[in-house]
Amino acid sequence: MVYFKKMAVIGVGLIGGSLARVLREKGAVGEVVGVGRGEANLKRGVELGVLDSYTTDAREGVAGADLVFVATPVCTIPKVVAEIAPFLAPGCIVTDGGSVKETVVTACEPLMPAGTFFVGGHPIAGTEHSGVEASFSTLYMGRRCIVTPTASTDPAALEKVVELWKLAGSTVPLMDPVQHDRVVAAISHLPHMVAYSLVNAVDGYDRFGGDLLSFSAGGFRDFTRIASSDPVMWRDIALTNREAILEMMDFFSVYLEKLRGLVAEGDADGLQAFFLNSKQKRDAIL
Amino acid sequence: MVYFKKMAVIGVGLIGGSLARVLREKGAVGEVVGVGRGEANLKRGVELGVLDSYTTDAREGVAGADLVFVATPVCTIPKVVAEIAPFLAPGCIVTDGGSVKETVVTACEPLMPAGTFFVGGHPIAGTEHSGVEASFSTLYMGRRCIVTPTASTDPAALEKVVELWKLAGSTVPLMDPVQHDRVVAAISHLPHMVAYSLVNAVDGYDRFGGDLLSFSAGGFRDFTRIASSDPVMWRDIALTNREAILEMMDFFSVYLEKLRGLVAEGDADGLQAFFLNSKQKRDAIL
Ligand SMILES: NC(=O)c1ccc[n+]([C@@H]2O[C@H](COP(=O)([O-])OP(=O)(O)OC[C@H]3O[C@@H](n4cnc5c(N)ncnc54)[C@H](OP(=O)(O)O)[C@@H]3O)[C@@H](O)[C@H]2O)c1
Ligand SMILES: NC(=O)c1ccc[n+]([C@@H]2O[C@H](COP(=O)([O-])OP(=O)(O)OC[C@H]3O[C@@H](n4cnc5c(N)ncnc54)[C@H](OP(=O)(O)O)[C@@H]3O)[C@@H](O)[C@H]2O)c1
Repeated sequence: MVYFKKMAVIGVGLIGGSLARVLREKGAVGEVVGVGRGEANLKRGVELGVLDSYTTDAREGVAGADLVFVATPVCTIPKVVAEIAPFLAPGCIVTDGGSVKETVVTACEPLMPAGTFFVGGHPIAGTEHSGVEASFSTLYMGRRCIVTPTASTDPAALEKVVELWKLAGSTVPLMDPVQHDRVVAAISHLPHMVAYSLVNAVDGYDRFGGDLLSFSAGGFRDFTRIASSDPVMWRDIALTNREAILEMMDFFSVYLEKLRGLVAEGDADGLQAFFLNSKQKRDAIL
Repeated sequence: MVYFKKMAVIGVGLIGGSLARVLREKGAVGEVVGVGRGEANLKRGVELGVLDSYTTDAREGVAGADLVFVATPVCTIPKVVAEIAPFLAPGCIVTDGGSVKETVVTACEPLMPAGTFFVGGHPIAGTEHSGVEASFSTLYMGRRCIVTPTASTDPAALEKVVELWKLAGSTVPLMDPVQHDRVVAAISHLPHMVAYSLVNAVDGYDRFGGDLLSFSAGGFRDFTRIASSDPVMWRDIALTNREAILEMMDFFSVYLEKLRGLVAEGDADGLQAFFLNSKQKRDAIL
């Protein structure tokens, strides 16, 4: 089994805290050090037993670590890696949990000193909650964690990162960072863009005096749950996965336009076929 | 309290069955007769205690009834009303549960013989299940049922219909049929069009070989739950509420286009404001 003597978690939130919890439970880590900006969250991490200790100095946190997990907001990951790189112990593996991979991997790989290794990863799991308080050890159970090696990734480091996500309960598809960004743009980022647009549109419609949202029932509420996700996190995702999100929004618009045409023409067969294909594909993933 | 000697329910499904159940529980109906096309569902309605008796002959079913609730698919409601109109007892109130109102009310009002009354209604409540088996007496509890009187609606009949929905546990806003159709287009029909388009788009994307749907996690699945609603029912809704749905799809596209612009420009402040407004409005309806 994969084993790390000292794991440093930089950004001890939902994603970082949950990985620390499960690796601890599995006995895959000796010591866990939390690194963050604010003491309150880190202290809570120690109280909850997620961390053995903490520091607000990232350089101190990574000293002697053989595993560093960077789980701060996507935009900040390259900055964090740039800051810690000169202080990494030989053989150290740095991996991350950021939701966007091409920009992160491209920026981080060249920062790594010889004999240390960067491997990008992204667990497809989450909740709307954040901070270490929201973390739990089964978050990754039965989910997928996409790991994104490139031509320059060290095979042994890759294997260890794959193994740790498997320990967390995930299946671990390997994917090119560019492909990864399209996959998550499609199944996560696009739905968020659509849900945010939908709530704003319904909110903005005032032909009859507004307040349409107050009429919403179960379906609409479930549907738009993701439209109340953290605006700062989604701003960052929209900024960092720009190309892929635009590609997917344009791809989506073609289908929306096609459906608009069917509605406008009153094409009964076309409408039914359009809805049926969606139902069948949706039911197949349940 | 409002009381009906004999209620006929035409279309004993989720909506019709649930109203019969709750009015029975409240003691607001003497006898309930179910009318449908197939015997199996109607028989089950008697077994479940939703109905006292049933018939497949609508004329026979409405004989002597002082309340008729038409809860068949929207497209069929005017046909049903045309068929039963000559056989209604004097004073009978006919009301419906169809999700679209302008086409239904416009078609049904002129069919009513003097001394009988049509009042349009639409309970904003539902599940993905159908048939009498799926019905339950608390479906309408804490929901809204929009009732859509027009200039020619009888005030006493209107009052009784409002009262029966209140008995079922709903609040009962009154609305012009045209306004109603925009409200439901916004909060129900548009989200369905968007969800169906989203699933079809993600299913259709094959730049990397397809099967993106298999990567979907919690958020996407919740979001697209409504994309597995009954294709025939939604075909009919798209056909009967055409104008309002097109209006809302176009309105939505303006917001989607606006967001696309913010993503393309990498406008951090604009993105955050767009997401934050959605979050605040969404959280306010929770
Ligand atoms: N939530 C999801 O659904 C999900 C799913 C998969 C991947 N991810 C990715 O996982 C990462 C973390 O997300 P999360 O959900 O765990 O968020 P989170 O619960 O808010 O945790 C992030 C942590 O990062 C630290 N942090 C925040 N802003 C920072 C900054 N500007 N610089 C340095 N550190 C900062 C915070 O700790 P301090 O305040 O102590 O610094 C915070 O505890 C992100 O890259 C996200 O894209 C999220
Ligand atoms: N489900 C929702 O979320 C919801 C919410 C609000 C309003 N509505 C409206 O309520 C009405 C009924 O919906 P529901 O959800 O109750 O559907 P449902 O459970 O399928 O019930 C509809 C019933 O109508 C009968 N029926 C079906 N096709 C018919 C046809 N072509 N001609 C005559 N009768 C037919 C069926 O009984 P037989 O096979 O015995 O004829 C069936 O039991 C629709 O107008 C719908 O727009 C639905």
